[in-house]
Amino acid sequence: MSPLTAPAGAVRQGSLRELNLALVLGRIAAADRPPSRADLAAATGLTRATVSAVVEDLIAGRLVTEAEPAPRAGAGRPARGLVLAGHGAAGLGLEINVDYLAVCVVDLAGRVRHRTVHRADLRPVAPADALARLVELAGRARADAAREDLVLAGAALAVPGLVDAAGVVRLAPNLGWREVPVPALLAGHPALTERIDGVPALVVDNEANLAALGELHAGPPGPTSFLHISGEVGIGAGIVLDGALFRGTRGWSGEIGHIPVRPEGRECRCGGRGCLEQYAGQEAILAAAGLAGADLPADTATARLAELAGAGDPAALRALHDAGSALGVAVASVVNLLDLDTVVLGGGYARLAPWLRPPVLAEISRRVLTAAWSPVTVRAAALGAEAAATGAAGSVVRRIVARPSGWLARTG
Amino acid sequence: MSPLTAPAGAVRQGSLRELNLALVLGRIAAADRPPSRADLAAATGLTRATVSAVVEDLIAGRLVTEAEPAPRAGAGRPARGLVLAGHGAAGLGLEINVDYLAVCVVDLAGRVRHRTVHRADLRPVAPADALARLVELAGRARADAAREDLVLAGAALAVPGLVDAAGVVRLAPNLGWREVPVPALLAGHPALTERIDGVPALVVDNEANLAALGELHAGPPGPTSFLHISGEVGIGAGIVLDGALFRGTRGWSGEIGHIPVRPEGRECRCGGRGCLEQYAGQEAILAAAGLAGADLPADTATARLAELAGAGDPAALRALHDAGSALGVAVASVVNLLDLDTVVLGGGYARLAPWLRPPVLAEISRRVLTAAWSPVTVRAAALGAEAAATGAAGSVVRRIVARPSGWLARTG
Repeated sequence: MSPLTAPAGAVRQGSLRELNLALVLGRIAAADRPPSRADLAAATGLTRATVSAVVEDLIAGRLVTEAEPAPRAGAGRPARGLVLAGHGAAGLGLEINVDYLAVCVVDLAGRVRHRTVHRADLRPVAPADALARLVELAGRARADAAREDLVLAGAALAVPGLVDAAGVVRLAPNLGWREVPVPALLAGHPALTERIDGVPALVVDNEANLAALGELHAGPPGPTSFLHISGEVGIGAGIVLDGALFRGTRGWSGEIGHIPVRPEGRECRCGGRGCLEQYAGQEAILAAAGLAGADLPADTATARLAELAGAGDPAALRALHDAGSALGVAVASVVNLLDLDTVVLGGGYARLAPWLRPPVLAEISRRVLTAAWSPVTVRAAALGAEAAATGAAGSVVRRIVARPSGWLARTG
Repeated sequence: MSPLTAPAGAVRQGSLRELNLALVLGRIAAADRPPSRADLAAATGLTRATVSAVVEDLIAGRLVTEAEPAPRAGAGRPARGLVLAGHGAAGLGLEINVDYLAVCVVDLAGRVRHRTVHRADLRPVAPADALARLVELAGRARADAAREDLVLAGAALAVPGLVDAAGVVRLAPNLGWREVPVPALLAGHPALTERIDGVPALVVDNEANLAALGELHAGPPGPTSFLHISGEVGIGAGIVLDGALFRGTRGWSGEIGHIPVRPEGRECRCGGRGCLEQYAGQEAILAAAGLAGADLPADTATARLAELAGAGDPAALRALHDAGSALGVAVASVVNLLDLDTVVLGGGYARLAPWLRPPVLAEISRRVLTAAWSPVTVRAAALGAEAAATGAAGSVVRRIVARPSGWLARTG
């Protein structure tokens, strides 16, 4: 080998190993039941020897572990299956919303291993102070995770607003945030801001986008194009097309809360008029049901609303019907435009879905051109209000599974 | 070579030739100036000999021709450049709309070589009769094309409604069509219904989709994600994302005309209420301007409206302002949802764009969350009312350029 070709050969060798690691780990992650090394060789086309070497690396890096062998009929020692490790790398999901902070740790297999939700009205709190509280919660989560032999391999932060590529929150109207440089404000917390494997340890993203990704990976198997609506104080949406999030030209898609449903109606915090949020946002619903002055945290108030509606309280039922009708007008616009066949009611809406669903379906049937012969499924989200933080943590572990070599380089 | 491998080898040989034909033709189609055979060899990585053989096939099949050599400084005979042929294969574009039929022939280079527009109110006409009229116009276009040494290689038909994969028009509310089996009704016209190269000679598609494709290929270079709105009696939209049409789960995306802009407003032909069409469709605008009873064909009435607006007529200006505001409410919904940065006013709107644009921009600025720091361009379409038939014909020739072997098999 000439000196000139050696480096190129070495690079190719290195990237071949990276590809094989990702290929084998991806198969283990996607398998219905724990595959053996022989299964993996058959599925990937790699030799048994290569699969064995790759699996050794994945086990040493604590990304994979051997499952207990299932009892097997017939002779011979059963082959041991491989599963994603329940220790080692994990993802940290963070969420700042209008009335709560949430922190969540998800292991490689997608299991939630830690969750904290801290209720507080964050509108009067300065962004730096809100982030400091979140860092404190994250520190506790990190310590909890360490006790379970989990190492946080990165974090994603969900915010209810528009985030640019540098992680700056350009606008979060319901929080009152404008041009908040989240990475700069977290500069004193290197665990969240260092770069790992070329990727910042912390990714900031829109709450509705991360919630839609959470639902995509947690929801029942089925169509992989859907609209996921996060109904909180604000209302955001994640548009999933063919299993991928559609982010729009600048990454700011999904602002369904500002679709005008009563164009000359109530003023909105965004400066517009008649936005969906003013009729179907959490505060609007609670106010209409007479629960606004009760000074309850929003989730308690929402639970109370669901109780009242379940008991047939006319004000609660009317408030939910009106909110569902407004939501249905916006959803009909989306379905007319995008021809999606599945709408998922997420965030705070998940709990209210039994009452929101009928008026949403009524508006779809009345207003969508294709509704008569092409039904739209409207269902409650599997994750509900936990989707954004879970989706955030899940996005970290999916990054590791897609490119395990970065993690292995860190761990040695 | 064993008898067993011969057929597989032959198939590979055949598909290699197909790939090379498409590769070379695609380079010629995309080139800024006519490339020589040497340019093509350099660009494709094929040998000079292979390029020469492929080019001979393309010239013999009348897909490519040699351009006049450009004068060149310096010594030596200039290499002759290659261009798409202006004779040979051409595409036929057909359109049925509410108040006109249109037929258009486009050659391989994308030049319009024939266009007929036949004005008539088609609402009282049975679908079979409307199609028969269109077939007659198509026959004349075919004869015209033959006189210019053009052979129609396929056709695409634009209809203002929802079309399924079999070419059945499920619903075209403004035409009053429901479940119209276009291919069956054209069975007596084999030139439109035979299968060529496995593809039906006639493809039926939504008018707004084909118009958006026409604009994509005819418009100025620039962003390739945009919303193209076809403003006719009905209003449809084509959503172009990264240079490709977004069709939705079932192919029925883009029904912007049925986005509710006054949710409890006027009844719509679709069965809904307050749909955009009722406020910004051609008939609604003309009625508001006092031009509805004039019994003029819609395009003449639209021209008259533009004249009146240009002269400062208050009723015309008010009608256009109100229509533009309604259109702006729907466009704001779309931009909030999809984060597109370009909106193209097409169809009948192209001529009215000077008056529609300001209220559309005003609604965007008022209602789109990101409008303050992320401007949206609203512009008139390059093609206007001709876009759908032109886009239909263009879709046929692009199919040939993408897979020339099918055409060559027919001719050679």
